[in-house]
Amino acid sequence: MQSIKVGLIGFGTVGSGTLHVLQRNQAEIRGRAGRGIEIAMIAARNAERAKTIQAQVGASIPVTADANELVNRADIDIVVELIGGMEPAKSLVLQAIANGKHVVTANKALLAVHGTEIFEAARAKGVVVAYEAAVAGGIPIIKALREGLAANRIQWLAGIINGTTNFILSEMRGKGLDFGTVLAEAQRLGYAEADPTFDIEGVDAAHKLTLMSAIAFGVPVQFDKAHIEGISKLQAADIKYAEQLGYRIKLLGVTRRRENGIELRVHPTLIPSTRLIANVEGAMNAVVVNGDAVGSTLFYGKGAGSEPTASAVVADLVDVTRLATADPDHRVPYLAFQPDAITNTPVLPIGDVQTAFYLRLVVADQAGVLARITTILAEHDISIDAVLQRESAEGERQTDVIILTHDTVEGRMTEALAKMQALATVLAPIVKLRKEELA
Amino acid sequence: MQSIKVGLIGFGTVGSGTLHVLQRNQAEIRGRAGRGIEIAMIAARNAERAKTIQAQVGASIPVTADANELVNRADIDIVVELIGGMEPAKSLVLQAIANGKHVVTANKALLAVHGTEIFEAARAKGVVVAYEAAVAGGIPIIKALREGLAANRIQWLAGIINGTTNFILSEMRGKGLDFGTVLAEAQRLGYAEADPTFDIEGVDAAHKLTLMSAIAFGVPVQFDKAHIEGISKLQAADIKYAEQLGYRIKLLGVTRRRENGIELRVHPTLIPSTRLIANVEGAMNAVVVNGDAVGSTLFYGKGAGSEPTASAVVADLVDVTRLATADPDHRVPYLAFQPDAITNTPVLPIGDVQTAFYLRLVVADQAGVLARITTILAEHDISIDAVLQRESAEGERQTDVIILTHDTVEGRMTEALAKMQALATVLAPIVKLRKEELA
Repeated sequence: MQSIKVGLIGFGTVGSGTLHVLQRNQAEIRGRAGRGIEIAMIAARNAERAKTIQAQVGASIPVTADANELVNRADIDIVVELIGGMEPAKSLVLQAIANGKHVVTANKALLAVHGTEIFEAARAKGVVVAYEAAVAGGIPIIKALREGLAANRIQWLAGIINGTTNFILSEMRGKGLDFGTVLAEAQRLGYAEADPTFDIEGVDAAHKLTLMSAIAFGVPVQFDKAHIEGISKLQAADIKYAEQLGYRIKLLGVTRRRENGIELRVHPTLIPSTRLIANVEGAMNAVVVNGDAVGSTLFYGKGAGSEPTASAVVADLVDVTRLATADPDHRVPYLAFQPDAITNTPVLPIGDVQTAFYLRLVVADQAGVLARITTILAEHDISIDAVLQRESAEGERQTDVIILTHDTVEGRMTEALAKMQALATVLAPIVKLRKEELA
Repeated sequence: MQSIKVGLIGFGTVGSGTLHVLQRNQAEIRGRAGRGIEIAMIAARNAERAKTIQAQVGASIPVTADANELVNRADIDIVVELIGGMEPAKSLVLQAIANGKHVVTANKALLAVHGTEIFEAARAKGVVVAYEAAVAGGIPIIKALREGLAANRIQWLAGIINGTTNFILSEMRGKGLDFGTVLAEAQRLGYAEADPTFDIEGVDAAHKLTLMSAIAFGVPVQFDKAHIEGISKLQAADIKYAEQLGYRIKLLGVTRRRENGIELRVHPTLIPSTRLIANVEGAMNAVVVNGDAVGSTLFYGKGAGSEPTASAVVADLVDVTRLATADPDHRVPYLAFQPDAITNTPVLPIGDVQTAFYLRLVVADQAGVLARITTILAEHDISIDAVLQRESAEGERQTDVIILTHDTVEGRMTEALAKMQALATVLAPIVKLRKEELA
């Protein structure tokens, strides 16, 4: 059978990785897919660079600077979109769909924000939009959620889905350094971008979480409802105290089914250090999925980089190749559930979210302070799991009190915090972090 | 669309779990599959028990004692085989295929031994044989290998794929107990069967490894070529010494591509205790897969039990339902690769396998002993990574010497061991374990 023809838009890290993998493993990929997968055209801003990279693998694929030319070519069956961001990616993807082409994309931001529109357009035209590479790089987590765990009512999932922040947190803990110092090191090493905002403020993780949440629970993508906190304000002291209490701090994306809605949130989180996911270090990614039949499962691997991400792009290409001419009913639905089974379960506001908390209070070292704090918590029906009070050094007038609570509704904690903060004996802004047992 | 009709052969732990999951999650499963999945008949030896279990979930499915009746019923689309073992499972599966029915099975032994015949029969009839539940329970590892990592030339994989032995090893390490003591405890708790041979001697793990090896490398199933060692001879002392050297001992299934063939082996293995897989405790399973594009990935979860295994059975049912009426070309090939892409790469005999080794020698506590041992290793071109000599107690005439080697060919080690064992100063049978860095 003739090879399927792919047009590649974007020829940076992932694009060139995709070319490398398709060239190097072409015999194995053909053996799996049943037909060859051939890149027929590349759209790249820098044609010279594209030619240099091609020369490395002995390829000589036509390069265009005009991605519209590529999506309008009749001989292309699948468009791979790897430019990222909103425009022109969105227009190109919609034009490819309008032209009846299947789409493979690594664009988490685009799908988290405009997924509903894009999937609806694809459904109307009977084409596939595949996006394994959009979440957790080479880890086949989209496939696991959409297919491998299809028997389950998924209860929750929690993931380390941003390598930059996990690298920073690993370094902060390992070396006892501050956020700013490690960020500068990460930028020097190429683990963090010059403008790291999307990574360190949790936006990238929230894009990925939004996609996983939609396919786990059968709800539309709702990025605008996600609660997002990054790690830029995290202090080394809290990493150290967490460790003393048996916890690691990770930037987690958490989505959980509750009776009245779905939690969708990204924030630094204490996790028991005995959990496997707490031991995921450096730029690695991992996702824990809890289903009612299977219990907890974990998926771990490289979440970014040229060939790990290309691994996911090419896996999607194999899937699409196999099903390119199939009846759309034979394909996996875009968001795991058939369109008529998608529900409008609301995303809960952060005030309604239930978690445990870690609090650090800088307090005057005098009698009755702890009693006042714990009374406020009790008045708000928040029960305490553990308390750690640092012994003050000689002559020191203040100390740190660390409190771990049991699960509570966040709104109640917000009220209690306002009262504690107002105490004259509380000398600095209270640090509040969330804690998940992931049991 | 009308529900697809399933016939269930075997109504023990996994069979009843399958019924429970299909009943409880029927709305979600229909939402994913696009049609309902309905058990139309159950074949069970104990009809009374089958009725009692059905009553728990409000089901009243006809029960037959004659599985042949079930596979010959015209209204059944998919046969789920959950009785295990060779016969009558093999005949029933082949009869179901001959009748044009799709098959879902959890039977690792059957497929590891007779897979070639069964897959060929299914191919000729154009039906699916799905077996996610045959390996690692609820972890979707077959799907990951056949589809999620399809871009990769897989280099190796290593798995904890038998929960009973991992439970025993965790207990031996945690409590410092001997194998026999822990086995008895495991039997009392229901973690080990009355006749635990298949589990503790590594046979069950080798069945699963054989299947994973075939789909990872595109070779036929070759269970008879697997090298198999269990844990029944493992001593508590070696678990302790391994720990001192920074390693954990796990029963691993390892399959690895070499230039001249494929390694296929199950044995107790030292793994650096910093690896995630070394921290997989109790009855849990995990598989590390290393691909040339993706690097190392890990898949973790419950490898056995009623609903975790049912999770895999039902995921297969969803896949089969979706593709039941599709052209066979639209389906994933049985062994990941198209039949014409399966190669006859040989399985290497154990003498040609390359690993590092852990040796424990009980030696006379006198001058020159270590020199003689290390000379023998040097003569066989085996290089030493670390040596640990236990300090003898006062008055003691013997001591333990532990040696970790670098990678070597096993045949060479066998020769060196024979020479060391012949030394008069070596006072007991030498303990030899294999070591994998899994880097």
